[in-house]
Amino acid sequence: MKSVKQIKIDKNLTVNELVLRFESSGVLGAGKIGKAANIFHDMIKDKECKIFIGAAGPLVPGGLREILIDILESDIVDVFVTTGATLTHDLGEALGFEHLQGHHMMDDKELNKQGYDRVYDSLMQNKIYEAIEKLIKDNFEIFKGRLTIKEFLWKLGSVVKSRSIIKTCYEKKIPLFCPGIADSGIGLMVWSQLVQGKTIDVQVFDDLKEIIDIAWNKQKNGVLYIGGGLPKNYIQQSLQFSKGASYGIQITTDREEPGGSSGAPLREGISWGKLEPDAKFVDVICDATIALPLIWSSVKDKL
Amino acid sequence: MKSVKQIKIDKNLTVNELVLRFESSGVLGAGKIGKAANIFHDMIKDKECKIFIGAAGPLVPGGLREILIDILESDIVDVFVTTGATLTHDLGEALGFEHLQGHHMMDDKELNKQGYDRVYDSLMQNKIYEAIEKLIKDNFEIFKGRLTIKEFLWKLGSVVKSRSIIKTCYEKKIPLFCPGIADSGIGLMVWSQLVQGKTIDVQVFDDLKEIIDIAWNKQKNGVLYIGGGLPKNYIQQSLQFSKGASYGIQITTDREEPGGSSGAPLREGISWGKLEPDAKFVDVICDATIALPLIWSSVKDKL
Amino acid sequence: MKSVKQIKIDKNLTVNELVLRFESSGVLGAGKIGKAANIFHDMIKDKECKIFIGAAGPLVPGGLREILIDILESDIVDVFVTTGATLTHDLGEALGFEHLQGHHMMDDKELNKQGYDRVYDSLMQNKIYEAIEKLIKDNFEIFKGRLTIKEFLWKLGSVVKSRSIIKTCYEKKIPLFCPGIADSGIGLMVWSQLVQGKTIDVQVFDDLKEIIDIAWNKQKNGVLYIGGGLPKNYIQQSLQFSKGASYGIQITTDREEPGGSSGAPLREGISWGKLEPDAKFVDVICDATIALPLIWSSVKDKL
Amino acid sequence: MKSVKQIKIDKNLTVNELVLRFESSGVLGAGKIGKAANIFHDMIKDKECKIFIGAAGPLVPGGLREILIDILESDIVDVFVTTGATLTHDLGEALGFEHLQGHHMMDDKELNKQGYDRVYDSLMQNKIYEAIEKLIKDNFEIFKGRLTIKEFLWKLGSVVKSRSIIKTCYEKKIPLFCPGIADSGIGLMVWSQLVQGKTIDVQVFDDLKEIIDIAWNKQKNGVLYIGGGLPKNYIQQSLQFSKGASYGIQITTDREEPGGSSGAPLREGISWGKLEPDAKFVDVICDATIALPLIWSSVKDKL
Repeated sequence: MKSVKQIKIDKNLTVNELVLRFESSGVLGAGKIGKAANIFHDMIKDKECKIFIGAAGPLVPGGLREILIDILESDIVDVFVTTGATLTHDLGEALGFEHLQGHHMMDDKELNKQGYDRVYDSLMQNKIYEAIEKLIKDNFEIFKGRLTIKEFLWKLGSVVKSRSIIKTCYEKKIPLFCPGIADSGIGLMVWSQLVQGKTIDVQVFDDLKEIIDIAWNKQKNGVLYIGGGLPKNYIQQSLQFSKGASYGIQITTDREEPGGSSGAPLREGISWGKLEPDAKFVDVICDATIALPLIWSSVKDKL
Repeated sequence: MKSVKQIKIDKNLTVNELVLRFESSGVLGAGKIGKAANIFHDMIKDKECKIFIGAAGPLVPGGLREILIDILESDIVDVFVTTGATLTHDLGEALGFEHLQGHHMMDDKELNKQGYDRVYDSLMQNKIYEAIEKLIKDNFEIFKGRLTIKEFLWKLGSVVKSRSIIKTCYEKKIPLFCPGIADSGIGLMVWSQLVQGKTIDVQVFDDLKEIIDIAWNKQKNGVLYIGGGLPKNYIQQSLQFSKGASYGIQITTDREEPGGSSGAPLREGISWGKLEPDAKFVDVICDATIALPLIWSSVKDKL
Repeated sequence: MKSVKQIKIDKNLTVNELVLRFESSGVLGAGKIGKAANIFHDMIKDKECKIFIGAAGPLVPGGLREILIDILESDIVDVFVTTGATLTHDLGEALGFEHLQGHHMMDDKELNKQGYDRVYDSLMQNKIYEAIEKLIKDNFEIFKGRLTIKEFLWKLGSVVKSRSIIKTCYEKKIPLFCPGIADSGIGLMVWSQLVQGKTIDVQVFDDLKEIIDIAWNKQKNGVLYIGGGLPKNYIQQSLQFSKGASYGIQITTDREEPGGSSGAPLREGISWGKLEPDAKFVDVICDATIALPLIWSSVKDKL
Repeated sequence: MKSVKQIKIDKNLTVNELVLRFESSGVLGAGKIGKAANIFHDMIKDKECKIFIGAAGPLVPGGLREILIDILESDIVDVFVTTGATLTHDLGEALGFEHLQGHHMMDDKELNKQGYDRVYDSLMQNKIYEAIEKLIKDNFEIFKGRLTIKEFLWKLGSVVKSRSIIKTCYEKKIPLFCPGIADSGIGLMVWSQLVQGKTIDVQVFDDLKEIIDIAWNKQKNGVLYIGGGLPKNYIQQSLQFSKGASYGIQITTDREEPGGSSGAPLREGISWGKLEPDAKFVDVICDATIALPLIWSSVKDKL
């Protein structure tokens, strides 16, 4: 057995060096961060491995938008699955709105009057909706024909002018899945067109063929789950009847004991066939806004 | 200020009496259970109030299926939103499969070999998928024409023979929404038809008109969120641009601090307009398999 | 394997009947409550078993004082270990003060001005300290000679007039241990005598002989941990070098992954010798104000 | 209001630079880490401020021993309060034992047979107890006369040969309080002397005078709570009747809602007088093995 190497802090320590020391410590939260950086690096280096990233939670209001774009621009991602909320926040910033620093004790009635929507201690301007509505309304004719959700989102990405998650996925042709897109500001702004008599044809089930095809055709799959929710579960089920993941990382603060998918440890996936029995994997129990910058900073230095 | 009334336990205490004592104690977890029972009773008695229930997490493998059906049969639910997984588990039981008692330390490799899928300490037989596939395959012709997800699910419910959540919603004409249906065993079994060349036309955005209409047309809305995820958020957003909830209960074990929708306290919804500033509401931080039976048992005795 | 029996709710259901149904459901939080009631009943019926209860957290402000006294009066407890805070809150109520129902969003500056100390959503009147100080001051001469903490607390209990945890332990001669007594309102009020020049001789290590003797002399030990902290750990270590527990229940909301004793699952104790390898045990992840009333109500009906 | 500045990752980023970017992001977990580093730096620079550190949880098995020693050697700590377990683990390493990297799924029965005690995924050799017993036995005569716990620990530190937390506190004359010392391996090894007929005179209440004196005599107090438990609460109560903290940081993963001291947000302390109403403070919800290295690395670069 390896000994727990006590973590030392020198002056001007780089993040990568600290994460390597976390890995040498080997245990508890720090050890998991170290192990996650190692596994992420491994799956990127493994040329036979397709990488699926699931991203849920308030990642854009939480300050992770640039990191997500950076990862997407790095030509390592084969599938990106996220929530409608993340794409809505991303679109908001692409349209010129910033999220704001608030506090979780703020008076929500007052915020409501002033047009701010609170996400714990970050704030979104309610005006984002108007800007997204205008974008969708002005470009509604591009959503012609029978579309998958991925096709719908790529088309939407094609009319976004600024650097963003959605535009990067479109330009890099990264399959962008969002099974819960109706449950989002983007969904609501499509709805506002529908109630004015317009129609659109976006199919619920058709994306499944593409994501499962990607999972099926390769020798190895690797997963990085930033949060749980639909993004994680949608990737998990695409692996279930194709090939389980050989590399796995999940970052969550949800508990295991209530049995929900978001808090389920990756190991559970072995019973389902979503994770290979001999996979390298780690569950990082940590706020993603702390864990992801550490992991990505370390991996970026190593690449 | 009211004093904390110490909880006394007599012989043969009824659940309702205990929950009333929880309410009198007024604080911490017990106080919240008591308050939730009170608010749920209030919203049922309020004839002007439409009741939205969002149900996520492993409720069927966790033993809450009969309670959910009981609530749906009680003619109090105006909208039911749930996950594809819940409907898959429900369908599994309707088709004759039971969930099984396992343990979270079981060997997942062994379970995989023996065909059991683990959900913390409950198990699902993998054979459920075959039975669902057969049901969908044998009845595929009923899914004709352009459908909303609700219409798709009602049609599916119409061919289910046994008492179940999906059949009850169909028979009672309770609007059943499931924005993430593609992310489920049902979704996978539709996919298995699609890869064999069949087609289906189920629309991503069309349900939004109906759920928002229901939220808009009434004087008051009440919400009961069992878990978070899409079901909670989908109801939340239907209230955002119509009328915020006047009564609110959420049962979750997710944390507030990472900022995700599932763990967000109801109060946060005031800033968004999802909750009325003067609403009666409570956040119950508890495993739903404990909290919901207590709340429903108390409310059922009062009705 | 047993099937998960879906929980049914009938009118006028008793708590015991519900807990039995939880036990039949067998999984997730409800299953754990059912199992805990069963194990607590088993250890009480087992005449060879000594029962150790560790009680931490705001149990008195949370409304559990009557239940704790009821359990102590039932002649089933061999050792009771608690925090100084619990004894301080208990003494406060014995001296005529009630705890009050507040809210976790209250203005703490305002509460401070008005003399209320907040414990999440319950409040304690700051005047409690004066009453405890008077009790200790007026009776300081009883604390003569070299004392163990248990002896100190029994002496203190002997001058308490009203029904209380401390008085019950004194009258029933239940060994009451409180290794962290200095860290409490009682500790502070002893300090206020010391700074006035009085002295007292209460020994840090001397209780260890008695608690380990109790653990050592019997064929079986059973533990019920309500919360973690010192009470749990102090019992755990008394078992480590004597005889591990044959029955174990712990109620906590702390997480396992950071590795602290309070959140450590009971199973971990097997490696230390604190739990017998073949013990019956369960970890209940639940707010104690919900779980303990359910468990005790069920056990009381069965006895 | 400030905008949320999206976190960018450059090559060879230093930890301090990343923590500064966390601070600029301003929200969620990353924002709290940034704020904590800032507040810790502020309290160190404030010459009028006495610094109290409370340290609980498996910090030594978790790899934080060197960081704690580094902080103690930096001449910034006025009071250090910790658990008996931390001092036991520290003493174990001082006596030549390392902690080992294990896994939380290991077979605890097997570990027990092989003499390893598990702390989540770290392991301690059971032989540590023998070495500590020998140290205490061989030096028992140094514990003469009436001692406070601090005096007892300084004496113990005086006979420790290797670099360690306890030796550093002794050599630097840092007041080291451990109100729960009886609840630890050190306590058990004192007990093993007592049962052989030796006696010792260590007083339960006498340290209170010193810690409250330190809190009382200065213009400002600052607190850093690594974990909760007795260390946090003992510092909190020393501030309650002297002067509340003007700077506060707490690192915990415990929840607020069950009302326990370990999970209570610092704000709650304002009602008790433990925190000044205008204090700078932050609650960091994170595994300490991740948070503390980030905070200390940033502060060390700034000093």
